[in-house]
Amino acid sequence: MLERIRIVLIGTSHPGNIGATARAMHNMGLADLSLVAPRCEPITAESVSRASGADHLVHAARVVGTLEEAVADCTLTVGASARSRTLPWPMLSPREVGDRLPAELVEPDARVALVFGREDSGLTNAELQRCHAHVHIPTNPDFSSLNLAAAVQVLAYECRQAWLTSEPADTDEPTNPDQVLASHAELEHYFAHLERTLVAIGFHDPAKPRQLMARLRRFTLRARPERMELNILRGILTETEKLAPPRDD
Amino acid sequence: MLERIRIVLIGTSHPGNIGATARAMHNMGLADLSLVAPRCEPITAESVSRASGADHLVHAARVVGTLEEAVADCTLTVGASARSRTLPWPMLSPREVGDRLPAELVEPDARVALVFGREDSGLTNAELQRCHAHVHIPTNPDFSSLNLAAAVQVLAYECRQAWLTSEPADTDEPTNPDQVLASHAELEHYFAHLERTLVAIGFHDPAKPRQLMARLRRFTLRARPERMELNILRGILTETEKLAPPRDD
Repeated sequence: MLERIRIVLIGTSHPGNIGATARAMHNMGLADLSLVAPRCEPITAESVSRASGADHLVHAARVVGTLEEAVADCTLTVGASARSRTLPWPMLSPREVGDRLPAELVEPDARVALVFGREDSGLTNAELQRCHAHVHIPTNPDFSSLNLAAAVQVLAYECRQAWLTSEPADTDEPTNPDQVLASHAELEHYFAHLERTLVAIGFHDPAKPRQLMARLRRFTLRARPERMELNILRGILTETEKLAPPRDD
Repeated sequence: MLERIRIVLIGTSHPGNIGATARAMHNMGLADLSLVAPRCEPITAESVSRASGADHLVHAARVVGTLEEAVADCTLTVGASARSRTLPWPMLSPREVGDRLPAELVEPDARVALVFGREDSGLTNAELQRCHAHVHIPTNPDFSSLNLAAAVQVLAYECRQAWLTSEPADTDEPTNPDQVLASHAELEHYFAHLERTLVAIGFHDPAKPRQLMARLRRFTLRARPERMELNILRGILTETEKLAPPRDD
């Protein structure tokens, strides 16, 4: 699914942003980058440095003259936009974009483009009107200028989330023996041992319970103890009991 | 809610990453930045330039020497981590962190810290074991090294999402004193007391730690102890210590 999501950058000015975009994409498993009329040389020392190991995406980027060319084969085109425009367009949150992707990409020929505008002025109205929908990343209204690569990062992250949650979960993973939860019976043995020990060291008087055991139960059960953890706790109780003074009876 | 979420960067090497972190935070409405033992000068031309208008967060950042100081007043501490460690810890996705925030921050004194490690080596095991939970940003397994500011961007984005979608909290309900969560500092006092006691009763040999304290930390932190519960546990330790044999020295 991820290989059929294209990131399109229009009129980018800073090579560093192209490199950082490549890094953000590769981190999230995206690989298809198109640059529309970049206003800088895409492959520079800075873009390669900021790509930080993902510069193969910069080298493989398709450079075209118009948005039309970049998205010609796409079945869904979503443009990143600051909030409301004169003519309201279907507006999605990044999460809603992610939520739509699995259904949008069922067909093998389907392609989705996520389109990002210029660092200084975003997408033009003409470009936005070529998109099926707009996506707005909710930001602090007092400081809404997201860095271009940061905006790509957020959308790419939502793409990967959507992909991860749409894949059937891998159920073959063996259980770590460390992580076997204690059974109810094991827990009750532990609580009996705990109470016995607290009585022995003089901390607890069952005649004046004051909800002590109830509080310790609530605390312990909240943690959902694993078997190995209970074994450690019982080991501590055993050592403690050895130190307790002999009983009167 | 957002003003009570702290971003903690440990051992950052590049001023540009501090600036870009400030920008990502301010974009999403976060303002509380702490730097633990930075390995660079935080306020430089590069950090101010990358902050791109959010450099007031860099100037206001608290610089401290240890993670302890940075999160002493925090009621929930979440450390960013690459996937599995030797000792598995409760692992959250960025979305799960966001989902938990509204409930975690109901109390006015509650504070959440999101802790990020060094660019080259992340957080140490000791640092991770001071956290209640870990957060892993799902990335391409072949290229998982997220830029530091990009990782902050993703988490800050989820914080803002959670805030935007959360219901206004009911603030009329008086706090039950029984339910005040223990702070980080209180927890660390407890762990120090616990370790001292386990040594005194001969259960624990710090020369052969065998992950004992790590396992007890994990268990305890998972339960999110309330202050009153910690008081009970410390009371038990105090009684136990009285029974321990005198030390040789």
